[in-house]
Amino acid sequence: MTRSWVPVPDDSDFPVHNLPYGVFSRAGDQPRAGVALGDFVVDVSRLDLPHAADFATTTLNAFMARGSGAWRAVRSRLTELLTDQTHRHSVAPHLIPRAEVALHLPFEVADYVDFYASEHHATNLGRIFRPAQEPLTANWKHLPIGYHGRAGTVVVSGTPVVRPRGQHRAAGGAGPSFGPSQRLDIEAEVGFVVGTPSALGAPVPGSAFADHVFGVVLVNDWSARDIQAWEYVPLGPFLGKSFATSVSPWVVPLDALAAARVTPHQEPTPLPYLTEGRRWGLDITMEVRLNGHVISRPPYGTAYWTPDQQLAHMTANGASLRTGDLYASGTISGPRRDQRGSLIELTWNGSEPLDLPDGSRRAFLLDGDTVTISAVARGADGTRLGFGDVTGTIQPAG
Amino acid sequence: MTRSWVPVPDDSDFPVHNLPYGVFSRAGDQPRAGVALGDFVVDVSRLDLPHAADFATTTLNAFMARGSGAWRAVRSRLTELLTDQTHRHSVAPHLIPRAEVALHLPFEVADYVDFYASEHHATNLGRIFRPAQEPLTANWKHLPIGYHGRAGTVVVSGTPVVRPRGQHRAAGGAGPSFGPSQRLDIEAEVGFVVGTPSALGAPVPGSAFADHVFGVVLVNDWSARDIQAWEYVPLGPFLGKSFATSVSPWVVPLDALAAARVTPHQEPTPLPYLTEGRRWGLDITMEVRLNGHVISRPPYGTAYWTPDQQLAHMTANGASLRTGDLYASGTISGPRRDQRGSLIELTWNGSEPLDLPDGSRRAFLLDGDTVTISAVARGADGTRLGFGDVTGTIQPAG
Repeated sequence: MTRSWVPVPDDSDFPVHNLPYGVFSRAGDQPRAGVALGDFVVDVSRLDLPHAADFATTTLNAFMARGSGAWRAVRSRLTELLTDQTHRHSVAPHLIPRAEVALHLPFEVADYVDFYASEHHATNLGRIFRPAQEPLTANWKHLPIGYHGRAGTVVVSGTPVVRPRGQHRAAGGAGPSFGPSQRLDIEAEVGFVVGTPSALGAPVPGSAFADHVFGVVLVNDWSARDIQAWEYVPLGPFLGKSFATSVSPWVVPLDALAAARVTPHQEPTPLPYLTEGRRWGLDITMEVRLNGHVISRPPYGTAYWTPDQQLAHMTANGASLRTGDLYASGTISGPRRDQRGSLIELTWNGSEPLDLPDGSRRAFLLDGDTVTISAVARGADGTRLGFGDVTGTIQPAG
Repeated sequence: MTRSWVPVPDDSDFPVHNLPYGVFSRAGDQPRAGVALGDFVVDVSRLDLPHAADFATTTLNAFMARGSGAWRAVRSRLTELLTDQTHRHSVAPHLIPRAEVALHLPFEVADYVDFYASEHHATNLGRIFRPAQEPLTANWKHLPIGYHGRAGTVVVSGTPVVRPRGQHRAAGGAGPSFGPSQRLDIEAEVGFVVGTPSALGAPVPGSAFADHVFGVVLVNDWSARDIQAWEYVPLGPFLGKSFATSVSPWVVPLDALAAARVTPHQEPTPLPYLTEGRRWGLDITMEVRLNGHVISRPPYGTAYWTPDQQLAHMTANGASLRTGDLYASGTISGPRRDQRGSLIELTWNGSEPLDLPDGSRRAFLLDGDTVTISAVARGADGTRLGFGDVTGTIQPAG
């Protein structure tokens, strides 16, 4: 079994089988790329690595754009440097305690797309928002439904989330009113970060997923349910989502997740352009904590649509990919109540509030609440990989 | 009346009262900023202007980010250089015939938002897509409905548009099929380009419109109606739009359009955050030509929602603006049939095809069709300003 000469605690998210990329600074110095290992950040811009100059920049985009050959070459060499004792003398000076660094948004987001991949989630939302109709729309099992979100408000974990104001209409009320959202919610999702771009007019098949997707992050797609409910017909969610989307600071390389792959069952069989993918379902178990209390463990492995299918769909019309494109799974909910990835599902639109162990009760988020999502997956050699946390605290409306 | 020492044809889109910005190159040299005047492009990077170094770059973003003080200072000085004969000797060498240049996408698009501002258009689409319901949804007159589009597929005028493939379902048919769109359409819109960014969590009031918006372009938001109809419930348009959005190559400064301002009537009065704007309705008349034949003249002055209201709405939840954000009006249709801004309206979803003067007939676009949108507005001194063309030709599905 591969082991690093760097001591890594047994329960660390970041064994040497992971090696996720992020952007860090220490004491306000220039942000640069780093790789997480145990309790350290490896200052990779200082190591003898291919494309090391890419790591001296403030985002991962230049490295991400190089493509999967470069990603593999760097990962291979980095593994060698961190496992072979002979490199200890040259590498050790570039290990920085993680507790000493600030983490930044790891990549410049190009376009942001949010999908709707979880059948349990889509069914729950359909029942809540459209109780008189079939919960799943007629198209749902034929195509991975998605929409574009606001790339400019994707923020790194730890960024405070200001409660949004907006229009909402009380049930049975007259006209809409404007004010702070009263139904502020979370959405626990898995996000995919595009490295290799593609040309306009040239669809990317699902089989090319690993050539284009650099890695995986956790996403909290904060949602104002009252704003969303009033605005979303007929053109979809807009201000109910666009105030903030938080991502975890570490991008886990796709190559680290090969042992976590699963293939979901799909019935009916989708159209051919969607069947040559479906090799990158991933058994990732998320954990959602509200003020430190675990409120859900959404299982990404139960998602109906896989990220390679989503990639094929997103480009089937000839839409191009850019380095930095981020697409998220959509809220993940499992079949059990304690696997639901949003408060609107956990509390059934507020009608069944959650009782927290601290004696408080929640329908939706209160000012000061902190939500943290973490996740684990199987890595090579039977190891357990983590993703780091994506966290955010609600600030009162300004 | 202000006149330039550069000869400008009477019917030119680009009198000295306009001075729109673009990015050009000649004979494959380095793209750089230029300003259109009559039949020339002024190579502004070579003139004695404030911030001239900004103009030596391949996008307008750096200059756009400087804010309205800088925009006014440059416009003022540029007007002086181009109207005062004493500068003729130094400036004339930097006039390049427009026929000799290639025009590029003038700015790097950050986020792209498409609104739905025309009551006539929204009513027509409601009647076509949801015949059993009220054509306008209950929210329509309370908020400017909008959604995010794909920024990465915004292309400059002249870029070929490949007919998209996608899923569609024949009426009364069984499952969906996959193939080239059979209902490829246009949408004639006016677009607004953000220069000055804003902070996350800080809404931008409509009264600050001219501080943030740099200028105006024409937009053709190509749409595949069959793909859109099947995919858009419940999360809105996605692949039916994301294959291409064309913009005109010249960004007309807001200051050039002051004389074109109009105030639309709104009933009911919108909520207060939307009433302090509504000063930037613009009387711009578009013209849509299909293979050279005029098929419509959509009047932007009839739009229900104004761009300052759209800006206030888009940021009311605290969403930040970035330099390069583009937001479009939504398809503009007037009350008359020959003022409708899309083929789905002009042909009533294909049931009333257009007979073109060349003897051909169109329900939707055929391969090889060329669509060109132009527009005029009143400028200072009673002049007529144009916007240049946004054009595109349909190529067969690859």
